Amino acid sequence: MIDPTAAAATPPAIILVRPQLAVNIGTTARAMANFGLSDLRLVAPREGWPLPEALQDTAEAAASGAVGLLRAARVFPTTEAAVADLHRLYATTARERGQGKPVLTPAVAMAHDRHSLAPDLRTGVLFGPERTGLDNDDVALADAVITFPVDPAYGSLNLAQAVLLVAYEWFKAETEDAAPFGPVERSRPASRKAVVAFFEYLEGALTEAGYFRPEEKIPIMRRNLRHIFQRAVLTEQDVRSLRGAMVRLVEGRRQPGRRGNATDPE
Amino acid sequence: MIDPTAAAATPPAIILVRPQLAVNIGTTARAMANFGLSDLRLVAPREGWPLPEALQDTAEAAASGAVGLLRAARVFPTTEAAVADLHRLYATTARERGQGKPVLTPAVAMAHDRHSLAPDLRTGVLFGPERTGLDNDDVALADAVITFPVDPAYGSLNLAQAVLLVAYEWFKAETEDAAPFGPVERSRPASRKAVVAFFEYLEGALTEAGYFRPEEKIPIMRRNLRHIFQRAVLTEQDVRSLRGAMVRLVEGRRQPGRRGNATDPE
Repeated sequence: MIDPTAAAATPPAIILVRPQLAVNIGTTARAMANFGLSDLRLVAPREGWPLPEALQDTAEAAASGAVGLLRAARVFPTTEAAVADLHRLYATTARERGQGKPVLTPAVAMAHDRHSLAPDLRTGVLFGPERTGLDNDDVALADAVITFPVDPAYGSLNLAQAVLLVAYEWFKAETEDAAPFGPVERSRPASRKAVVAFFEYLEGALTEAGYFRPEEKIPIMRRNLRHIFQRAVLTEQDVRSLRGAMVRLVEGRRQPGRRGNATDPE
Repeated sequence: MIDPTAAAATPPAIILVRPQLAVNIGTTARAMANFGLSDLRLVAPREGWPLPEALQDTAEAAASGAVGLLRAARVFPTTEAAVADLHRLYATTARERGQGKPVLTPAVAMAHDRHSLAPDLRTGVLFGPERTGLDNDDVALADAVITFPVDPAYGSLNLAQAVLLVAYEWFKAETEDAAPFGPVERSRPASRKAVVAFFEYLEGALTEAGYFRPEEKIPIMRRNLRHIFQRAVLTEQDVRSLRGAMVRLVEGRRQPGRRGNATDPE
């Protein structure tokens, strides 16, 4: 797994333009922290910055551990000021804006930057006010529009969800979709020999019990049974457990109630 | 763009196991609706179902337009009952659970199902209670674990965010990441002839103004200038606007203050 803190590219700045609700600034910080982003910029937040105490508490509760990131947010009076140092800028919109900008989904935009931009270049993504979205002058500052692949019959992502999806796609592009952990092998797969020995025992017991009939179907029945157990990718422990279970069934049938040696077939 | 309502595969069921907060059930419904999912199942929700009136209001407010989906949620007493009809089941976990299940990210899991499962098979994804996550018996019911590619230094997705990411990845796999709109061509790109005519005018005016020197750099300076404008992918209107601007600059220089015929060079 790739260590995300060793990511080569500068993570994008997240710029909230005229955000209305303190809680959304907090959930934005939380979404960013999940995916290794830390550069949060606010343009003329409605409630001011720093926030009044009660709203600061709201924002910090929503930030849920990303409080440092939240407090480090920088505030700017205009969008132009907030993006002045950036080399590439995206504007998120839910509807077409008629400016002829390229339109990308988050996955495509983040992959493009990962593969096409020098890692020291600074990028940013604009998110507009909660009800109205970015205005045309904000969109005009951008190199391209990001829009989200949503069901057009409903599509209504809120601000924090939109930030989450952009941050997630950036992290996936950076780390090649690295999960924080992988599967654990509980024990080694059994050797062919151990598995075949189990099959032979089982088939012998089933033959004795009259399972394999009619005669012309015997080869296919044997193979089907073997396929089932092969798909289970039996470990050595599994083989022992299954063999023990089969032996118990056989023993119980022959001598109901007798507790005999499970490895001692008659 | 692909019409998501014509998706061939059955969308996955979203199963919330012992959800604690009514607001999270509502935001789950909203996340699902954004991405074309509708099969919401609840296992033993803490507050009961239907919810008490005040909590129902909370959930419906959070569902923000997906109220129908929320009200159609089905309730089950146990996880086993909730998943009985499913052919493939995932369990979302933040930490490894020691059961040796395959571990997939949402993108990989949804792409796998899109490409490998017959579209009429029913799949589902389990999400555990907010603070504790799924218990081991729940995980044991699943074919594979889904975990999220998050920054391991922070990674703390809440229930609604986890549902959002799974739903988003399903929709992307189904629609091949289809944006709801594409770029708009404002007018047609100019022909080579019109662009070259503009270049020749511009280069003539700059030559007269003494821009191109020293002599050995003239070819590279001309080419660089042409490259700049070619990257702008000029439309016919752009060519007219730029030519008009250049002509004004030239005319203004020759006869400051005189408003002459812009197309009449001296």
